[in-house]
Amino acid sequence: MMRYYLILDIGGTKTSGALFTEDGKIVDDYVHVAPSKTFLGEEAVYQNTKDVLLHIINHFSLKKEEILGIGVGSPGPLDAEKGVIIHAPLMGWHNFPIVERLEADFGMKVMLDNDGNLGALAEVRMGVAMGLKNVIYMTVSTGCGGGIVVNGEVYRGSSSGAGEVGHMSIMPEGLKCPCGSVGCFELYASGTAINHRLKEDMKKGIQSEAFELAEFKTENLNGKVLNEAAELGDAYALEVYCKEGYYLGIGIANQFNFFNPDTIVLGGGVTKAKKFFHEALMETLKERCIQPISDSSVRYSVMNDRVVLYGAYCLIKEYTDKKQ
Amino acid sequence: MMRYYLILDIGGTKTSGALFTEDGKIVDDYVHVAPSKTFLGEEAVYQNTKDVLLHIINHFSLKKEEILGIGVGSPGPLDAEKGVIIHAPLMGWHNFPIVERLEADFGMKVMLDNDGNLGALAEVRMGVAMGLKNVIYMTVSTGCGGGIVVNGEVYRGSSSGAGEVGHMSIMPEGLKCPCGSVGCFELYASGTAINHRLKEDMKKGIQSEAFELAEFKTENLNGKVLNEAAELGDAYALEVYCKEGYYLGIGIANQFNFFNPDTIVLGGGVTKAKKFFHEALMETLKERCIQPISDSSVRYSVMNDRVVLYGAYCLIKEYTDKKQ
Repeated sequence: MMRYYLILDIGGTKTSGALFTEDGKIVDDYVHVAPSKTFLGEEAVYQNTKDVLLHIINHFSLKKEEILGIGVGSPGPLDAEKGVIIHAPLMGWHNFPIVERLEADFGMKVMLDNDGNLGALAEVRMGVAMGLKNVIYMTVSTGCGGGIVVNGEVYRGSSSGAGEVGHMSIMPEGLKCPCGSVGCFELYASGTAINHRLKEDMKKGIQSEAFELAEFKTENLNGKVLNEAAELGDAYALEVYCKEGYYLGIGIANQFNFFNPDTIVLGGGVTKAKKFFHEALMETLKERCIQPISDSSVRYSVMNDRVVLYGAYCLIKEYTDKKQ
Repeated sequence: MMRYYLILDIGGTKTSGALFTEDGKIVDDYVHVAPSKTFLGEEAVYQNTKDVLLHIINHFSLKKEEILGIGVGSPGPLDAEKGVIIHAPLMGWHNFPIVERLEADFGMKVMLDNDGNLGALAEVRMGVAMGLKNVIYMTVSTGCGGGIVVNGEVYRGSSSGAGEVGHMSIMPEGLKCPCGSVGCFELYASGTAINHRLKEDMKKGIQSEAFELAEFKTENLNGKVLNEAAELGDAYALEVYCKEGYYLGIGIANQFNFFNPDTIVLGGGVTKAKKFFHEALMETLKERCIQPISDSSVRYSVMNDRVVLYGAYCLIKEYTDKKQ
């Protein structure tokens, strides 16, 4: 009998489910994606989450004894050990015992961790940082999240709060952050920061292909039009990415100087434009890092939006392997 | 027969030696301090270092079999595993194999690590962070150095470069740092930064008891006169410390958000004025940290200038204990 892992990636806009083989392949390369139906209340959102797993079970006509366990990724803050999502306002979840609930409903072991930690785990076990000991994973998309691996294992910190790389301040008297701090890294380097910059600059009347591609509508301004403009050699778009590399470099240099990792792995939507910002990023790192920086100091995830699924697979697999 | 550890703390201005009992007491509370005689060349400086150990051996009329091993602390960068001091310009040491040399000269095991790591080790084994798992130690004096403990063990990073907390940039377009970066934390929060601020402000004609205590001579401006002025309730001195707490808070909040430690332990000369900056520090942390900050999140070392000696003792003791 073949045996499998059920894997779930809960996100703010969509929730994905997949079936993994014991050796970490997604069965049939099939990932079921459902809208997360947020704001419907704690129970309705949980039901929706459960339905994603049930869909996978039905799709593959799985029997319970074929499933070794369930791995779940979710945005933080959460308590991985207790299996509780501490605060997920979009879901209406506050101290929601998701592991207990899923274990009761499916009758099998469930393991939970947050996006950043699972991204780091996936990259170190199966990705571009495979086998390395000390690694930072950072996702650059709506915000900047992260995860830390020390000696080959996920480091969660003292209250499951490690890896909040997006909230290291790089401009202490700069922009105010909703987190309460000032000048947080993600206010300068995230996809949201780039979009904000585009809007401001379009208002100012700056010329760019990006604005034409967006038909001068703020709602059309995003990474896609910026990327297209950069592909066309648009000077403004290239400058925005150069600045992105610079800001990323500042925040990443701080992590290098504190933590001296083997490598940092970058993922998330913004890294699709890596060819436009990589040079500025490396230049900034070489200028600002105490330890030497090489080409392999920065790597880009190739798992794309499946990185959390892979991480959740590694999490539950390592648990069940240890139990055997 | 009683057995002991020989402990050495090599510094840029002075080198200290002491004899430790097996259970971590300094014998007779006797610490021999000698000037470091820098700039005399590699061999002369090494000889001087060796003399500090020989002094201790003679002072206590020690026999070789009474000594279990030698623990050495030195400023970095160094390679703790190889026992090599990579770069100590004051000493004229470049890739200097100090462990091999001392082992040859004294015929016993020698262990080496840098100030920051030994500070962290000392605090976690015997100090105000005793028994805690994830701890940052930071010294605030001429510069800002640090050490990191993960799961109760010193974390050195991938090339012995972890804990360079002083070179995390908090003002990326601010002051230029000799390290090559810009806006490094230590340029704002170290003792040197405070002294620099005093000089600038005295030039500007700002009124303060501190300047009167220094007889308006820049060479007399230091932490001592500032502290005395603050004790007298001088408004300017209190404001300087308030700013110090603010800058410390920014740099420490970044470390909390990245690393989520149980606590950070502060040592170094500047912390003698803790009562004047502690409140501003805690306020800044509470504003800027993602995880809750409590009174025990920040602790002050009570080992003062013996912290590296204690750390070097812990290092060699743990090595010999494991061997037994």
